[in-house]
Amino acid sequence: MAVYTKVDDKTLADFLSRYDVGTALSFKGIAEGIENSNYLLETTQDRFILTLYEKRTKEEDLPYFLGMMAHAARAGLPSALPIHDKSGLALQTLKGKNACLISFLSGVSVDDIQPGHCRKLGEALARLHKAWFDFKPIRANEIGFEGWQHMAKATAACADDLHAGLKYTIACELDYLANTLPKNLPTGTIHADLFPDNVLFTGDKITGLIDFYFGCTDQLAYDLAICINAWCFDEHHTFVPARARAMIEEYDQHRTLTPEERTALPILCRGAAMRFLLTRLYDYQNPVSGAVVSPKNPLDYLKRLEFHQQIKETDHYVV
Amino acid sequence: MAVYTKVDDKTLADFLSRYDVGTALSFKGIAEGIENSNYLLETTQDRFILTLYEKRTKEEDLPYFLGMMAHAARAGLPSALPIHDKSGLALQTLKGKNACLISFLSGVSVDDIQPGHCRKLGEALARLHKAWFDFKPIRANEIGFEGWQHMAKATAACADDLHAGLKYTIACELDYLANTLPKNLPTGTIHADLFPDNVLFTGDKITGLIDFYFGCTDQLAYDLAICINAWCFDEHHTFVPARARAMIEEYDQHRTLTPEERTALPILCRGAAMRFLLTRLYDYQNPVSGAVVSPKNPLDYLKRLEFHQQIKETDHYVV
Repeated sequence: MAVYTKVDDKTLADFLSRYDVGTALSFKGIAEGIENSNYLLETTQDRFILTLYEKRTKEEDLPYFLGMMAHAARAGLPSALPIHDKSGLALQTLKGKNACLISFLSGVSVDDIQPGHCRKLGEALARLHKAWFDFKPIRANEIGFEGWQHMAKATAACADDLHAGLKYTIACELDYLANTLPKNLPTGTIHADLFPDNVLFTGDKITGLIDFYFGCTDQLAYDLAICINAWCFDEHHTFVPARARAMIEEYDQHRTLTPEERTALPILCRGAAMRFLLTRLYDYQNPVSGAVVSPKNPLDYLKRLEFHQQIKETDHYVV
Repeated sequence: MAVYTKVDDKTLADFLSRYDVGTALSFKGIAEGIENSNYLLETTQDRFILTLYEKRTKEEDLPYFLGMMAHAARAGLPSALPIHDKSGLALQTLKGKNACLISFLSGVSVDDIQPGHCRKLGEALARLHKAWFDFKPIRANEIGFEGWQHMAKATAACADDLHAGLKYTIACELDYLANTLPKNLPTGTIHADLFPDNVLFTGDKITGLIDFYFGCTDQLAYDLAICINAWCFDEHHTFVPARARAMIEEYDQHRTLTPEERTALPILCRGAAMRFLLTRLYDYQNPVSGAVVSPKNPLDYLKRLEFHQQIKETDHYVV
């Protein structure tokens, strides 16, 4: 959570005058995301999120992220929608930062995850992937295998301080993944960070998909593997088969997995566990000053990795 | 700002079932206050603030603060109102913390302060004081003169690291105030922290008075002196006479200042400047872990103190 950049009332009023959205009735910094500053804004017309992009979000990537969101929203998915100003621009400058006014979405994040939630998530993920089939821009995944190698190097010196043998475990796993990760599965635009925090439910219905700032072009089934890691383990980091079954089955209902994707799922899950193990380890060693969210425990993802290492066939996820 | 205590969706649903307020549609941690955790909650019925009181707010004081708020709201002031549960209780326990559901108030804090805002503030402050005439509970001001002496002692060793001569300036001022601070002015319940952050405007109208957690029993004119310090200096910490005149005149219109209060105003303003100089100096030396708000500059209040030291008569504030 963070509000790094303060927006005063006069600056806000000037900013809103660029749009046809009315004037401010309420404006509160919110604890959402650790990368950017976010405000919940209520105007005389509607509610919005105002995001100011801080330095970790690259300026050149913003049109891509906003495009992803707009594309998904136009396809009928409950994605946040960038609002255009009177001259048709979505991306703005505010207090010297890139900024965007985004539609507000109702709903709450789910902590007590049930298989029914995973079913809905599987459907939403498949529908996102399909909606993005005709989203043309390409963005490389900066946190793909090469990125993992860089992070493994950057974190190696201190990895064992956190957990004895971690450096060796990471090195061995990277060797294994180098030889086994599939390269020719169907690709497209992926969310790449669709954790429970980024999905808002109203009752049993998904009413909000947010935080597209890791979006990129990659293998679609890798996005599913990220969600299996994020949604299908309980608070003790124990795998919950009913959640995975519901998610995978429902994804498959809405976008049929190819036989190659099915076969690759255990390896992709190991890759996804590795990705979050490494980024959490990196963030743990390099905490962001000013962020209130305390760094998440990297070892939660070591446990997931160890689980996936035991899985030889995708059927084990869906029994 | 802060969200120290995370409330998951199931805990929230259980909590809301104690009330007649509907079920959650949206729930976001907000960056308000540095003492407590605050959430903006929208239910099927209305919007609310959920506050979880962290350790710096003493449990035994909470009924007093909630009583102040309820009393002001019942008198027609736009104060946040504690919501009672089905059994009539306002103060609750949630995630092991004291907690309260409070009415949501529209409006935005003003940064570009105009004399008109100060006029409204003067009126609101006088109306608060009058509304609290029949609020019977008593709470000593913990940050009164004795509190200042303790903080002066606690900060003395490092004060000159921030500003050469600061320790001596503080000691001399405390000596002066010990002999000059009035003791027999009209007393009552005061807000004691009615900074621009704690006042929400919709257009020219005050639609929200919040954050009563420094409320106490003290001399009423001292509350006005706090507001003069908080509202009547520009961003360069230069006194703006038109703001003070508007505030003091309008206060006097709604609660007539006694001749003794008028005479004492310069001394009370010195005391109020001293209070915030000392608490800021203390917070600067003892930052709260986990708070995103960076400590405020104590020297802003040294400048105000130096200004008030030049003022010999209250008329100088209202020319």
